[in-house]
Amino acid sequence: MSLSYDLLTPSKIVFGWGRRNEVGRLAKSLGRRAFLVSGSRTLEKQGVLEELTNHLREAEVDVIPLASISHEPEVTDVDEATARLRSHDPGPGDLVIGIGGGAALDLAKALTAMATNAESPTVKDYLEGVGKGLSLNVPPLPMLAMPTTSGTGSEATKNAVISSYDPPFKKSLRSEQMVPKIVLADPELTVSAPPTVTAYSGMDAITQLLESYISCRAKPIPKALALHGLQRALPAIKEVCRDGTCRWARENMAHAALLSGIALANSGLGMAHGVAAALGVHAKVPHGLACAVMLPVALRVNREAAEEDLATLAPLLAKPGPNEPPADALVRTIAELCDAVAIPKRLSEIGVSADQIPRIVTSSRGNSMNGNPRELPDDELTKILEEML
Amino acid sequence: MSLSYDLLTPSKIVFGWGRRNEVGRLAKSLGRRAFLVSGSRTLEKQGVLEELTNHLREAEVDVIPLASISHEPEVTDVDEATARLRSHDPGPGDLVIGIGGGAALDLAKALTAMATNAESPTVKDYLEGVGKGLSLNVPPLPMLAMPTTSGTGSEATKNAVISSYDPPFKKSLRSEQMVPKIVLADPELTVSAPPTVTAYSGMDAITQLLESYISCRAKPIPKALALHGLQRALPAIKEVCRDGTCRWARENMAHAALLSGIALANSGLGMAHGVAAALGVHAKVPHGLACAVMLPVALRVNREAAEEDLATLAPLLAKPGPNEPPADALVRTIAELCDAVAIPKRLSEIGVSADQIPRIVTSSRGNSMNGNPRELPDDELTKILEEML
Repeated sequence: MSLSYDLLTPSKIVFGWGRRNEVGRLAKSLGRRAFLVSGSRTLEKQGVLEELTNHLREAEVDVIPLASISHEPEVTDVDEATARLRSHDPGPGDLVIGIGGGAALDLAKALTAMATNAESPTVKDYLEGVGKGLSLNVPPLPMLAMPTTSGTGSEATKNAVISSYDPPFKKSLRSEQMVPKIVLADPELTVSAPPTVTAYSGMDAITQLLESYISCRAKPIPKALALHGLQRALPAIKEVCRDGTCRWARENMAHAALLSGIALANSGLGMAHGVAAALGVHAKVPHGLACAVMLPVALRVNREAAEEDLATLAPLLAKPGPNEPPADALVRTIAELCDAVAIPKRLSEIGVSADQIPRIVTSSRGNSMNGNPRELPDDELTKILEEML
Repeated sequence: MSLSYDLLTPSKIVFGWGRRNEVGRLAKSLGRRAFLVSGSRTLEKQGVLEELTNHLREAEVDVIPLASISHEPEVTDVDEATARLRSHDPGPGDLVIGIGGGAALDLAKALTAMATNAESPTVKDYLEGVGKGLSLNVPPLPMLAMPTTSGTGSEATKNAVISSYDPPFKKSLRSEQMVPKIVLADPELTVSAPPTVTAYSGMDAITQLLESYISCRAKPIPKALALHGLQRALPAIKEVCRDGTCRWARENMAHAALLSGIALANSGLGMAHGVAAALGVHAKVPHGLACAVMLPVALRVNREAAEEDLATLAPLLAKPGPNEPPADALVRTIAELCDAVAIPKRLSEIGVSADQIPRIVTSSRGNSMNGNPRELPDDELTKILEEML
């Protein structure tokens, strides 16, 4: 098989405990005026935003706080922040700093593009299949991403997931140039994440590492990175769920999440993420939780199609029992991991009802599903989900 | 041990047989006017440059051929091309395309910086310790790199190695922003490389993968990539030396060389590269050959200091004999590989004489040597080199 691939990555990654104090120097390499988008969690209370702003001002970077968000960004969130941003007449010399979980980073990424592509006031017109179908022709503002959860890997991807509940959809705003130019990952910022956020976002990262590895669009460099990330994440997630202050566990989860972003951005995903998007839209299940609930099932469904990859991972990640095929050992290990971090097994436990399943099946056919190792007809997916109720 | 690192990479890699025809689209994403720097080898004869120029013009990118080079760039090469480049008043909207082996790519990289940093007419003034010590304050022009040998990994690094023979030195021009923005690696372009170039450049890549892996400055992501690269390169180099037209072997060597560039740029190197630089300066030994001659010796010298890393690599790259320690198996395997591709063992075979050794020892103390897993005092290095005569 011939070797052919594209690889998109942030140009620069700065990773390390306490390294958020380097934000001034790094931001200055991208511009002189920074629009700040943050997650709402505990950052503000802890003075992190103030600390950040001081570092930026010391480096002579002007700071304009633009938005704070506590839920996955919706069209209205993007549009309101876009209006504020555009009132500052953004252009060369400006950058966007996103600090927070996947929601804040996705909002920040969307704004980098909306700042410079101003044919429409609403991001909806730039999303696939739901608006005017406008494209992003002008390069976005450069972005510096500072993740504060270890999960989505949004800091390393080229898309921003935007939701809407009326009408219900979850779509991506996508542009190669939306990949953040610089990622500044300070795992100390993740310590304040509450236990459920830690568990769900960690399982999101692990799902991304596994699904991108077995994806039918998998590429060699992302696979090497995903393998490395899994070797770090599997021991670390158990420890970080037991003790959220454990430094090595926080470091390794942040590292693995970043790798999961690079991996998924270049290799695609699969069934767990396809269905998770639909569970988010129709049952408002938090994304990481939805991924984790679906992961063991997705591995079982793809076991044969992905046997070679699963068997490659097994000796590094699982301990096969006597006579247990390696691929089975890996699937079992991941199912046990989900149990260990208290992930429910049934859809009814996460608020999904039987009557939602047809809509969930339909909405599962997003971009993520295209990476699944094998075709998954509607009737088969329906049956799988019904058995999970 | 805490997890802390910086990672610099090209933002975009486009890799694949025949994909050079995408150069127009890719160049246009960086600018509208391209300064072209090429290796002199067979590219011109084969019409590759003409093909490239046509693709660029079709994409409405103006092309200005700037320089062609057939040897590792010297101060005068850079300065002459700089004068030509500056006469075109370079600035925003311009890019540099480098196509060739490490020499052409390094010259192109040096020119991206010399285009925008114009306090001095000579690159010497921007090199460490030999000129006025000027720094590169202005961002360089963006660069698109098209490697035509599988070796130096220059397409992914932030430095350009510049030589001088009077006075003799080999120094790097270095800036984070000199990392090419886009790498377009078409392994088909490497097919015309003659057998010695193929063998030497391939061994350069393998040396970079191994030295960066065991470097005392090694980082986790580069290590994951180096391991992957070695798994590809070790079988491929034998095949490509046997049959230079073998597609999978050419693809895997080009892939491994690219990974070696990312790895060395972020993890550093070691003794083989430290000495190889000095062998280049004082005995004009081609860089890849010098690396290959030094590699088995460097592994033996560092065997104990790097035992854990060598033992990690061994099961994946070597077949340990009964009772053979894994690290020894790896060192033996690499020595056998050097034999298989006809690398000389003795310094006298590559034109080095006893009286040159003191100068070689002194000139080995460049940046590469800083990554060596252990200290190597002058008297020990002298003895090692004398025994290799």
